[in-house]
Amino acid sequence: MHRYERLADHLRERIQAGFYQVHERLPSVRALAQAHGVSLSTVQHAYHQLEDAQLIEARPKSGYFVSPRRERLPAPPVARTAQRPVEVSQWEHVREGTCVLPDTSMHNLGRGMPDIDAPTLKPLLRALARVSRRQDLIGLNYDTLHGRPELREQIARLAVGQGCRLHPDDIVVTTGCHEAISIAMRAVCEPGGIIAVDSPSFYGALQSIRAYGMKAMEIPTDPETGISLEALELALEQWPIRAIQLTPTCNNPLGYTLSEARKRALYALAQRFDVAIIEDDVYGDLSYGFPRPVTIKSFDEDGRVLLCSSFSKTLAPGLRIGWIAPGRYHERALHMKYVGTGSTATQGQMAVAEFIREGHHEPHLRRMRAQYQGNRDRMLDVIESAFPASTRVSYPAGGFMLWLECADGIDSVALNQRLMAEGIRIAPGVVFSATGKYRHCLRLNHAVFDAEIARAVSRVGHCVAEMLTQRADAGQPETA
Amino acid sequence: MHRYERLADHLRERIQAGFYQVHERLPSVRALAQAHGVSLSTVQHAYHQLEDAQLIEARPKSGYFVSPRRERLPAPPVARTAQRPVEVSQWEHVREGTCVLPDTSMHNLGRGMPDIDAPTLKPLLRALARVSRRQDLIGLNYDTLHGRPELREQIARLAVGQGCRLHPDDIVVTTGCHEAISIAMRAVCEPGGIIAVDSPSFYGALQSIRAYGMKAMEIPTDPETGISLEALELALEQWPIRAIQLTPTCNNPLGYTLSEARKRALYALAQRFDVAIIEDDVYGDLSYGFPRPVTIKSFDEDGRVLLCSSFSKTLAPGLRIGWIAPGRYHERALHMKYVGTGSTATQGQMAVAEFIREGHHEPHLRRMRAQYQGNRDRMLDVIESAFPASTRVSYPAGGFMLWLECADGIDSVALNQRLMAEGIRIAPGVVFSATGKYRHCLRLNHAVFDAEIARAVSRVGHCVAEMLTQRADAGQPETA
Ligand SMILES: Cc1ncc(COP(=O)(O)O)c(C=O)c1O
Ligand SMILES: Cc1ncc(COP(=O)(O)O)c(C=O)c1O
Repeated sequence: MHRYERLADHLRERIQAGFYQVHERLPSVRALAQAHGVSLSTVQHAYHQLEDAQLIEARPKSGYFVSPRRERLPAPPVARTAQRPVEVSQWEHVREGTCVLPDTSMHNLGRGMPDIDAPTLKPLLRALARVSRRQDLIGLNYDTLHGRPELREQIARLAVGQGCRLHPDDIVVTTGCHEAISIAMRAVCEPGGIIAVDSPSFYGALQSIRAYGMKAMEIPTDPETGISLEALELALEQWPIRAIQLTPTCNNPLGYTLSEARKRALYALAQRFDVAIIEDDVYGDLSYGFPRPVTIKSFDEDGRVLLCSSFSKTLAPGLRIGWIAPGRYHERALHMKYVGTGSTATQGQMAVAEFIREGHHEPHLRRMRAQYQGNRDRMLDVIESAFPASTRVSYPAGGFMLWLECADGIDSVALNQRLMAEGIRIAPGVVFSATGKYRHCLRLNHAVFDAEIARAVSRVGHCVAEMLTQRADAGQPETA
Repeated sequence: MHRYERLADHLRERIQAGFYQVHERLPSVRALAQAHGVSLSTVQHAYHQLEDAQLIEARPKSGYFVSPRRERLPAPPVARTAQRPVEVSQWEHVREGTCVLPDTSMHNLGRGMPDIDAPTLKPLLRALARVSRRQDLIGLNYDTLHGRPELREQIARLAVGQGCRLHPDDIVVTTGCHEAISIAMRAVCEPGGIIAVDSPSFYGALQSIRAYGMKAMEIPTDPETGISLEALELALEQWPIRAIQLTPTCNNPLGYTLSEARKRALYALAQRFDVAIIEDDVYGDLSYGFPRPVTIKSFDEDGRVLLCSSFSKTLAPGLRIGWIAPGRYHERALHMKYVGTGSTATQGQMAVAEFIREGHHEPHLRRMRAQYQGNRDRMLDVIESAFPASTRVSYPAGGFMLWLECADGIDSVALNQRLMAEGIRIAPGVVFSATGKYRHCLRLNHAVFDAEIARAVSRVGHCVAEMLTQRADAGQPETA
């Protein structure tokens, strides 16, 4: 553990114990450095970590203060997973959720859609229209396999904010983060090989494991602190795992951000067992804490991290523009990119590059982060009042997803069926598991929040309550 | 063999033997029917086949006439291929050709780029700009996994012209034909499995075979009549082949169109050996004969044909919009689509659907077919005058590619290197082979033809001649 991490832990304990009260000013950086005999930057580092965790907040020119902490519902506990590699099933449930047309008469709380109606996104629409009118017709032409140079340049610039030094040539543009993950898996693992994943986990990654004939080793993951490094180490000792695939920053579906210390420890584990890390950072830029947490890729000294991301959650998913920085697997990744789709659609790339170059990206992110954080709290309020008391819920550090755990035996697949008749969709927990676990869990999207959505969420809660009562009435035994 | 095929063969022989002379009027449909004791539609069918083969042409209200037949350079002979399944190599050469940026200072005769500067394509640019301005923002949203309904509807309508009855729900939109082929292979074949391919063959399909750990069984293919059904049958008898992948209409790189009789025979073979057919129809709509030849898919009675295509060659490759009609493999194909890229970029789909719905597609195709056919002949003239007499060249029935076979020992990879210094690129033959055959062959793009391109093609020819002289001077022995 680093010095600053020890200091952060010390401060966290004091805040949680009530030694420092809400809205109280914390010691100045200088005072703390003297008291603990550490450097100023160590203190700053520790304070940044606590800021990321939303325990404290900086006020310009006056220092750090303890954040008001909402009364929180209990978080879900760590789930137990199979302690061996498994085949992935659940496609029928994933299919159900992805073969849906955008439908304004429906409240789709199930899908990973950002809010695309923000005014800060308008310049992107203008850029798209402009690109279509370009006389050189480059937008209609095959792009180079790597992706447009002007876009890779912007992606490399943005990476600096994630603690990463990337050259544009380190990056391959992809058809969304989905293709990036798909490329990464095929680049590092043969059919029959084993990939370790956080659990619950993004269903797209799980289904890729299935499609390529691989197996998933699901690692128990804490909704607050993230993937269990102890369980991961055990798995790495016992099985010939080829790669660790996870979403360590603003995790989908749990919402946690792995601390920098744990990210480093995970990287060290990967080095020790010589496995690759497939780091999905698709929600990373939506971290409520600012500056955003660093990526595992930022520690990568031997090219074993394949960083995967996209503009789907930050700008618009319909563009299908993502990227991969595949480190030492660059050549294999490029081959997999080639055989998967050839090059990526050209016009969208050009428009996004313009949007970023003209300075619209950062203001847009700032707005969306604030909106999503606010909506999180609003939706949590509704959940607290409408769901049965047995419900547990995550407290995301970024993004726009909440993870709910209902009482054992509540079937969220059946819940979803029932809600669909009323024009509401949720994401049932089973899709986040290789083998249909998390059936009593569900994920809700809080990208957009208004009175109608509040009503829809209430309706979900009441439906869960009804199901609970019906179960009690029927005297059904609890199923695992 | 069908009756009309026997009749067509009979007429072909007579034309080729000079019994019917160039510009001579052929017997009327009625007269021929009476003479041969067949129905009117049998004669019509036979005449259509000869039209497809560009041997005769219809003149409105006056009947069928023998086409003027240009003095043709000799076609390349059928190449010998390895008579066993092989692993695919050659990625470094494919990579070289696809990691290239569009560059107006370069004459890229190597890539499969259509002419995107035609006036008939302008409505597409307008549609793209219009879609960007749509208030409902559907273009920014995740599309359903299958692709936009309005686009699938148009694709199903167009399929009628290929003899196919498809329902929009039979179609899955993809990120180009490349993704369609990639999906098809993974849907029908496991890693380690064998796929039979025409040879020479589209390099993207070959590289997919490599990437998915499969093996290629290359089937000798005649530049005029297409894949050898005899060799294919032998291969099917000897090896556990899972699928036949080929481009039977306006083949890339050879330019032939498999006759309808051979398409039927191939389908029957697939049935007999119970293998799937992956039919790449990406150039099919650019057949110079009109109406365009039917697809193998049009005979498909048990869903074993996976039809793959795109708008890359007919409209614009930068859109990356293709489709697959995977028949009985629909569910597996949908899963492979999901894990490869999730859904396809939305805006381009909407714009293409509008372009077709508004009636711009057919006039555009008509124009492009005429342009490409004219350019073929112009480029053939240049080739005839500039290349050594030992050169053989294909006589495409559609599309915009010419296949040249130089004297044995001419190294087209070295040729390409040399030409690049002068701002010219070609596609070296090796990329069309699993194992680096066709090194003395090359492919040239004739989508656009003007004085500058003529000069570039001349330059290629002179370069080949120089290499030939240098070889003779050096007294190098011929290499295989
Ligand atoms: C964690 C995670 N990774 C990747 C993706 C896929 O992103 P894209 O739409 O860019 O393919 C998603 C979207 O659902 C996601 O939630
Ligand atoms: C025969 C053939 N099939 C498929 C493709 C790929 O098409 P797309 O650009 O739509 O992926 C090409 C393009 O080079 C081709 O020549």
